[in-house]
Amino acid sequence: MIDFRSDYLEGCHPSILKLLQETNLEQTPGYGTDDYCQAAADAIRDTFGCPDAAVHFVVGGTQANAIVIDAALRTYQGVLCPFSGHINQHETGAIEAHGHKVIALPAKDGRITSSQVSVFCALQGDDEHTVMPGMVYISLSTELGTLYDLTQLRDLYMTCRQNGIYLYIDGARLGYALSSPLTDLKPEDIANCCDVFTVGGTKQGALFGEAIVITNPELNDHFRHVIKQHGGMLAKGRLLGLQYLALMKDGLYFTLAKQAVTQAMRIREALCEKGITLFTDGPTNQLFPVFSDEQAEKLEEEFIFSPWERVDEGHTAYRLCTSWATTDENTNRLISAIRAL
Amino acid sequence: MIDFRSDYLEGCHPSILKLLQETNLEQTPGYGTDDYCQAAADAIRDTFGCPDAAVHFVVGGTQANAIVIDAALRTYQGVLCPFSGHINQHETGAIEAHGHKVIALPAKDGRITSSQVSVFCALQGDDEHTVMPGMVYISLSTELGTLYDLTQLRDLYMTCRQNGIYLYIDGARLGYALSSPLTDLKPEDIANCCDVFTVGGTKQGALFGEAIVITNPELNDHFRHVIKQHGGMLAKGRLLGLQYLALMKDGLYFTLAKQAVTQAMRIREALCEKGITLFTDGPTNQLFPVFSDEQAEKLEEEFIFSPWERVDEGHTAYRLCTSWATTDENTNRLISAIRAL
Amino acid sequence: MIDFRSDYLEGCHPSILKLLQETNLEQTPGYGTDDYCQAAADAIRDTFGCPDAAVHFVVGGTQANAIVIDAALRTYQGVLCPFSGHINQHETGAIEAHGHKVIALPAKDGRITSSQVSVFCALQGDDEHTVMPGMVYISLSTELGTLYDLTQLRDLYMTCRQNGIYLYIDGARLGYALSSPLTDLKPEDIANCCDVFTVGGTKQGALFGEAIVITNPELNDHFRHVIKQHGGMLAKGRLLGLQYLALMKDGLYFTLAKQAVTQAMRIREALCEKGITLFTDGPTNQLFPVFSDEQAEKLEEEFIFSPWERVDEGHTAYRLCTSWATTDENTNRLISAIRAL
Amino acid sequence: MIDFRSDYLEGCHPSILKLLQETNLEQTPGYGTDDYCQAAADAIRDTFGCPDAAVHFVVGGTQANAIVIDAALRTYQGVLCPFSGHINQHETGAIEAHGHKVIALPAKDGRITSSQVSVFCALQGDDEHTVMPGMVYISLSTELGTLYDLTQLRDLYMTCRQNGIYLYIDGARLGYALSSPLTDLKPEDIANCCDVFTVGGTKQGALFGEAIVITNPELNDHFRHVIKQHGGMLAKGRLLGLQYLALMKDGLYFTLAKQAVTQAMRIREALCEKGITLFTDGPTNQLFPVFSDEQAEKLEEEFIFSPWERVDEGHTAYRLCTSWATTDENTNRLISAIRAL
Repeated sequence: MIDFRSDYLEGCHPSILKLLQETNLEQTPGYGTDDYCQAAADAIRDTFGCPDAAVHFVVGGTQANAIVIDAALRTYQGVLCPFSGHINQHETGAIEAHGHKVIALPAKDGRITSSQVSVFCALQGDDEHTVMPGMVYISLSTELGTLYDLTQLRDLYMTCRQNGIYLYIDGARLGYALSSPLTDLKPEDIANCCDVFTVGGTKQGALFGEAIVITNPELNDHFRHVIKQHGGMLAKGRLLGLQYLALMKDGLYFTLAKQAVTQAMRIREALCEKGITLFTDGPTNQLFPVFSDEQAEKLEEEFIFSPWERVDEGHTAYRLCTSWATTDENTNRLISAIRAL
Repeated sequence: MIDFRSDYLEGCHPSILKLLQETNLEQTPGYGTDDYCQAAADAIRDTFGCPDAAVHFVVGGTQANAIVIDAALRTYQGVLCPFSGHINQHETGAIEAHGHKVIALPAKDGRITSSQVSVFCALQGDDEHTVMPGMVYISLSTELGTLYDLTQLRDLYMTCRQNGIYLYIDGARLGYALSSPLTDLKPEDIANCCDVFTVGGTKQGALFGEAIVITNPELNDHFRHVIKQHGGMLAKGRLLGLQYLALMKDGLYFTLAKQAVTQAMRIREALCEKGITLFTDGPTNQLFPVFSDEQAEKLEEEFIFSPWERVDEGHTAYRLCTSWATTDENTNRLISAIRAL
Repeated sequence: MIDFRSDYLEGCHPSILKLLQETNLEQTPGYGTDDYCQAAADAIRDTFGCPDAAVHFVVGGTQANAIVIDAALRTYQGVLCPFSGHINQHETGAIEAHGHKVIALPAKDGRITSSQVSVFCALQGDDEHTVMPGMVYISLSTELGTLYDLTQLRDLYMTCRQNGIYLYIDGARLGYALSSPLTDLKPEDIANCCDVFTVGGTKQGALFGEAIVITNPELNDHFRHVIKQHGGMLAKGRLLGLQYLALMKDGLYFTLAKQAVTQAMRIREALCEKGITLFTDGPTNQLFPVFSDEQAEKLEEEFIFSPWERVDEGHTAYRLCTSWATTDENTNRLISAIRAL
Repeated sequence: MIDFRSDYLEGCHPSILKLLQETNLEQTPGYGTDDYCQAAADAIRDTFGCPDAAVHFVVGGTQANAIVIDAALRTYQGVLCPFSGHINQHETGAIEAHGHKVIALPAKDGRITSSQVSVFCALQGDDEHTVMPGMVYISLSTELGTLYDLTQLRDLYMTCRQNGIYLYIDGARLGYALSSPLTDLKPEDIANCCDVFTVGGTKQGALFGEAIVITNPELNDHFRHVIKQHGGMLAKGRLLGLQYLALMKDGLYFTLAKQAVTQAMRIREALCEKGITLFTDGPTNQLFPVFSDEQAEKLEEEFIFSPWERVDEGHTAYRLCTSWATTDENTNRLISAIRAL
């Protein structure tokens, strides 16, 4: 069976394992205070054009989200997000576990607009009987595979600043977003259009890891305390530094992402030729085809997808992901199978 | 410089990296539902003689502690522990961050006694104005390198059961404890004398990882929800399974621990011969010599230790750890340097 | 100016002050362990036909909600509620502050249906990546002045039981609900159709106070610990007992509520005669007329209402409440003013 | 039986009930935004000589503590306090329930010293593996009936400021402290020597209530949001304002306290004449005599005290409180009984 359920099914890019091997017996201080973490942070600052940003590494995405949001908010504040946002739907209440309300806004295709945010803030005012919004959370690419363009992102950030709240971009799939043939976003746009963002590793070729990049220095105050309190400080912190060093070297991060998006776009083309509807249509490594039950049954003889949502009697939307590890051969087999439906 | 500050300065035992390499391109389902995690859990159940235990893997120790304690306690309960307990001293309030009081008891050499627990429970009674104790937390070996013997452990567990509270053993350094020449504890004693314990990986030769072993099935209810809520569920969960598979294979876990303890005991002998006081004297891989400022200055030309506590004007206790990666050569150099003081 | 903004604008029914006066110099033990609290609890058990229920008194509604929900849920669970539910909209994240997600469902007229709950539970399943629902919260009467009828309430409770979750009825305005001419609910129906409910005092003629009535004994475990931890245990607890004694005596609680509902129904009739739309139409003490800006301006020369929602360019929905203290004279003046529009 | 167990056994001073009666049917806006609360705040600012302070009213002491501390601290910070501090011993983990560690320091007679605080801060440094202290909590008078003098209080405050942490004085019994014949503290000293303090009502003649006085404006930011989130905002907020108006009028607050302290000092004299040891000796309304079991048995035929601590085989320390409501007659009877032992 060929598994297309997610982008974290395999281990990591071989260059990462090689680097871990080469450095294995070195002694380094713990908790991310080693030179490899420092060098990796430099590489990220360089890649995203934010020389003054603070960079912290943690193991996972839910952890990164909980840490960033908890560090940013005061006890009476909450975080605005699209209804489909990962923090709202797939983190078992990790944000609320630290005391903060997730305020979900209706989201077409996984995105919210600057006007939704400004309307909400205007209505809410400064009423002590309601949760005060302190941050906006968005994902890029979104959980539905869609993107914000530069204008949308700038508007959102400007609205946030006008309302005195932070903008946080969950970049668990940031590489895929920036490697899409249809985006006008560049790495430095990310750094310029928010207060804090993550550069995802787990879904982009690392064994694990999320880099938290803080461009607004207010948010960096005692940030390491918050990481530690959340159980997010890795004893052998260099493991994160080493992985990001490997990924940032010669743009490997984007090279891998581009390969994955290319594979996805080839599959998308085959789906469209076949007349198969897309639940949401986004130009990254995630596809959401709506298969009839017969089509699904046929394809599932050879492939595994994630069921996403029952669309109607007889049809289900599935999620299908490519990754750095998706081979041409597997893509070709899937395309053939789609054509043969 | 040779670093003796901790037991997590290097990467991991080579057999682990080898296994990661060999399986790197396999596709497995995420979040610890893969076969490797299953096999590793079986190996742990087998090693500790608890065929019905539930086993969960998480990345770090603070995380493991916060998850176990939060899963066990009701909102109005707290956890009793020795004053020097890791959860009380070195986790930045991670337990309290999830709403639970850490109730610290005075602890000679890092250990608490069953009578301290029973006296506390008797005095506290069921008064709604005070925090109700719901769990006792101990470390084995302790943060001061000491051990409980089988009688002490049994008494503690019996007292906990009589008072209707859980006993949790933080086994971040469990291998060292069970490999000490001076312990009467066997792996199955651990499983029999508590409700839940961890089998530490990070400090015992893995890249990272703590195995949570739940022998009291009450504590396993929706445990995976709690892991996820705490940001502790690793996407590529197999990385934890693979490491524990390697460590449990042919008793490697204990072989490595024994080597480290042997090195430590050799250093201890040199310290004693030299008449150097030990701040606490425990038979595992952690030593706490009290050096005069002159001695420290001399040794720090070549070695790095962790300062632990200023003992008096002129003397400081240091922590010195050996690990699976400590070489004979480095041990010999340290012994020579001690002798030359 | 005559104020119709809410049902907690005045002090309390004179019989309460009289009782406080008469008992003022008595010495009683604190924290609700006195005989008056005991007698008041008996009176409530009697009134609602639940002789085995546990009854606890707290000062306020947000407090009561936070305590009940926190006591009922495990750390990984959340509470389902209508979008307009008080806990979702007007408690500044008090539920989340104790770690629990409020999962809001779309709610026509402030009510949710049993099928919404069963569909949600079926979809959510037992997936550890999502918050597990542990309780359903509804208000009676709702924040929009509407009611559930007996069939709806029974269905909801049955669905909750089938899904293994608790049903909690926030009865801040329970008296008004049960005193409506259009309800088929009797006090004992409340006790029989949920696991826990409150009997509101603050909005029903007391100085302050909510009685928490627990009919499912599972929920009563260490409940007083949770009250205390939430800062909800009143030192001079008898003040709550005395007030409920006065309110339950000879059915005063319902007499007062009925008066208020009668006044509201008279005003409602005047509104309808005038052709004024109602934002939501409920048969209790809260009315939500939609006034044109001109109408509002005219009425606000003499009366104060709460603006509720801007309906369109030129119209706003207002909330208007009657209470035990609303006089015939003030009602008549408002009716005259409405007729004169 | 005459009850000396606490200072909250009776209702309230008659002038309070009178004022509640007189204003009962007035309509006022809710949540403490009424004119009575404003006037009461003015009276408190005037009494304590802090014209720019913010004043908020809440119902209870545990609530006040949890709100003040949660509002002041960032998520990774904790609060230092004497081991015997109310927040450490008698609030069922209310501070921890909002995520903050209570760091208890050894406390002779219920007091901590400025040097304890400075030593702790120096040792802790800014280490991200430990909880950062953000506030010091003390009680005045303390839970053991003792006082700080002006020099001690000034030193403590200076130390707090030097370490960048807040000082909070829990004044649940502040009136008794300031009315002691042996104190050199004046009301304005309290306002000048901390960042925030409370003026207790519950134990000082009110039905209930604590006034939170914030002299450091940093702490007032969105404070009402925090009150509401903690369930601490009273709907009919004027009830708090009215009570403090009555208490502050013509210095009634201190008059009542002085009466109580005078009664206590008379009892203390009788105890000393009889050679009865005091567990701790403080000059306020709380006494902690150590009675032999025979003495206790005899006295308990007529009086009720709170057992405090078993001192040795045969002796127990009891707490005995006077209050605004303690009559000369009852005091005389107790003195006679002591003399007759």
